[in-house]
Amino acid sequence: MTFINKWLRADIQDIKAYHVPKSEHMIKLDAMESPFLIPKDLVKSYLTYLSEVPLNRYPDAGAEEVQQALRSLMDIPDKLGVLLGNGSDELIQLVSLACETGDTVLSVEPSFVMYEMIAKFTRLNYQGVLLDDNYEINLNGVLEEITRTQPKLIFIAYPNNPTGNAFDRESILAIIKESEALIVVDEAYYAYSEGSFLNEVANYPNLVLLRTISKMGFAGLRLGLLIGSQNTIRELDKLRLPYNINTLTQASANFLLKEKDHIIANANIIIDERQRLFDELTAMPGLKVFPSQANFLLIKVDDAKSLFEFLKSNGILVKSFTMNPQLSNCIRLTVGNPSENNEFLEQIKNYYG
Amino acid sequence: MTFINKWLRADIQDIKAYHVPKSEHMIKLDAMESPFLIPKDLVKSYLTYLSEVPLNRYPDAGAEEVQQALRSLMDIPDKLGVLLGNGSDELIQLVSLACETGDTVLSVEPSFVMYEMIAKFTRLNYQGVLLDDNYEINLNGVLEEITRTQPKLIFIAYPNNPTGNAFDRESILAIIKESEALIVVDEAYYAYSEGSFLNEVANYPNLVLLRTISKMGFAGLRLGLLIGSQNTIRELDKLRLPYNINTLTQASANFLLKEKDHIIANANIIIDERQRLFDELTAMPGLKVFPSQANFLLIKVDDAKSLFEFLKSNGILVKSFTMNPQLSNCIRLTVGNPSENNEFLEQIKNYYG
Repeated sequence: MTFINKWLRADIQDIKAYHVPKSEHMIKLDAMESPFLIPKDLVKSYLTYLSEVPLNRYPDAGAEEVQQALRSLMDIPDKLGVLLGNGSDELIQLVSLACETGDTVLSVEPSFVMYEMIAKFTRLNYQGVLLDDNYEINLNGVLEEITRTQPKLIFIAYPNNPTGNAFDRESILAIIKESEALIVVDEAYYAYSEGSFLNEVANYPNLVLLRTISKMGFAGLRLGLLIGSQNTIRELDKLRLPYNINTLTQASANFLLKEKDHIIANANIIIDERQRLFDELTAMPGLKVFPSQANFLLIKVDDAKSLFEFLKSNGILVKSFTMNPQLSNCIRLTVGNPSENNEFLEQIKNYYG
Repeated sequence: MTFINKWLRADIQDIKAYHVPKSEHMIKLDAMESPFLIPKDLVKSYLTYLSEVPLNRYPDAGAEEVQQALRSLMDIPDKLGVLLGNGSDELIQLVSLACETGDTVLSVEPSFVMYEMIAKFTRLNYQGVLLDDNYEINLNGVLEEITRTQPKLIFIAYPNNPTGNAFDRESILAIIKESEALIVVDEAYYAYSEGSFLNEVANYPNLVLLRTISKMGFAGLRLGLLIGSQNTIRELDKLRLPYNINTLTQASANFLLKEKDHIIANANIIIDERQRLFDELTAMPGLKVFPSQANFLLIKVDDAKSLFEFLKSNGILVKSFTMNPQLSNCIRLTVGNPSENNEFLEQIKNYYG
């Protein structure tokens, strides 16, 4: 037995290493990325802006300018506070570290897997409550688990990943009201959703929002944010590692997020394409397409593994779910640009043809 | 009482927010940054390289190319594993999370403050053992505390910050041999030091090294690395958040770290300047300059606060220590470029003159 096997806690050793599939030269519709690059006419001034950044110096520790850029892009009211992280993941870890060891984290299932994973990393208990057959929150079930486990932290993805739907608003409000937990509503896909809880944050002191720019064209920057009352954010900020947002991410966000109209226009293209894919796929026999408020669609097929392999061999990467009974024979399709979506439609028609 | 004051653990609420002094238009000799920018003749091809990176896609999760670039820059043997973090801080947090709640983290004092801070964040106990009057490890004291507290994790900065010295090598080896802890030798300043434990990692399964490129010209990139046996790194990697190193940091490291000769030449300039500053300052009456293997000097003066304010009012920012009795009336001076150092020498002579 090696040193590390004796030394490291067993629950971490038991984790299987995270596998990222090879995607070179593939049409990449597996990871909820935006298909849009930085506009060509911006690239030159963007690079000039980057070139003026002194890489030998530590970043701005408070990243005030980035916060302003995000406030302005996302219409975040001044009365709310903003806390930045390297992607949502670092912020999920931060609020998890804010808890005491052994506290319970509650979420619904299926949802974003990192809620459970990071609960384990930070030595918290995790309790999942299954969604119903329509992937809607089982409110009674959640409220019962709240009474039973007294969770310290509740994560609700809105819209939800990987199901794509935005849960019933009243159910979420009931959870916020009935629990003494910190409720983290994860709005990673807000740009593609009709609803948001941004205007509720000021009404409920136990509500914070998680957002990211990863799904809006900037997955490479790894920039997420937590939005809450000024007081809540000021206290949670004490757990942030200093200088966590590096200089190039800061400069890029400062420059690129000013293109609000362009970012919104890109999101609207995806929303239109989502509708087109939904309509065309729904019209195909044998497929069930679930309604989506995100930049992806969950699709139930006859044999997800076979379809996944067929698409892959034709150069298209999607996500297939095989292990989870709630998602059996489902694939998750990120909405690409029109030509990528056409290629997907052509291939799936070939497959079923 | 607000929600967050009821909700958040008290030891975090008690933390005073980290204060970063304003430094605009100052000669910045407070943060161990390298004074050297990217060479002018590289900037254009660097920017072209960055422009080819798709920001809309998630980063390479494994960051293999960055690992190779670091291996080659730092002569890391193939048989060792490398784990990347957003600065050393994220890696200190990662190894701390690998422990069980309530485990003890041991370090010497004064040293890098984040060992203790992150122990608190991750709900571990922290035990410091005072250095002796020459800022050397009190080996008997450390061994006694190892017996008493059975630490799970021991951090030893080599060279040490803020004292600048590299501790006695035999003392560190004795600690590695006598303890069942994971020993993290933090070589943040290795580029300026005569010694390293890199060649010892293969000999001691409980030894890992922490390094960073922050002190070598790239503080803005926030890129740190943990070096250990392949087996140790593979297990610890399970605690790494996926995609933690963003695309621009990866691309920048891949491109910029290839300039090994240039990076070493810059380090050698700093080593020469450190000697020049040491000699000139030692020759001044009333100053005690401590030997340094890092890119900074610890200097004991008659009144650190007064000197700090004088330098600041003359446009030079250093770090002064006022609270810690072991560092009373000490300032820490980062070695700058020759003209910055000349300006510092002129001002300190004015002050004492």
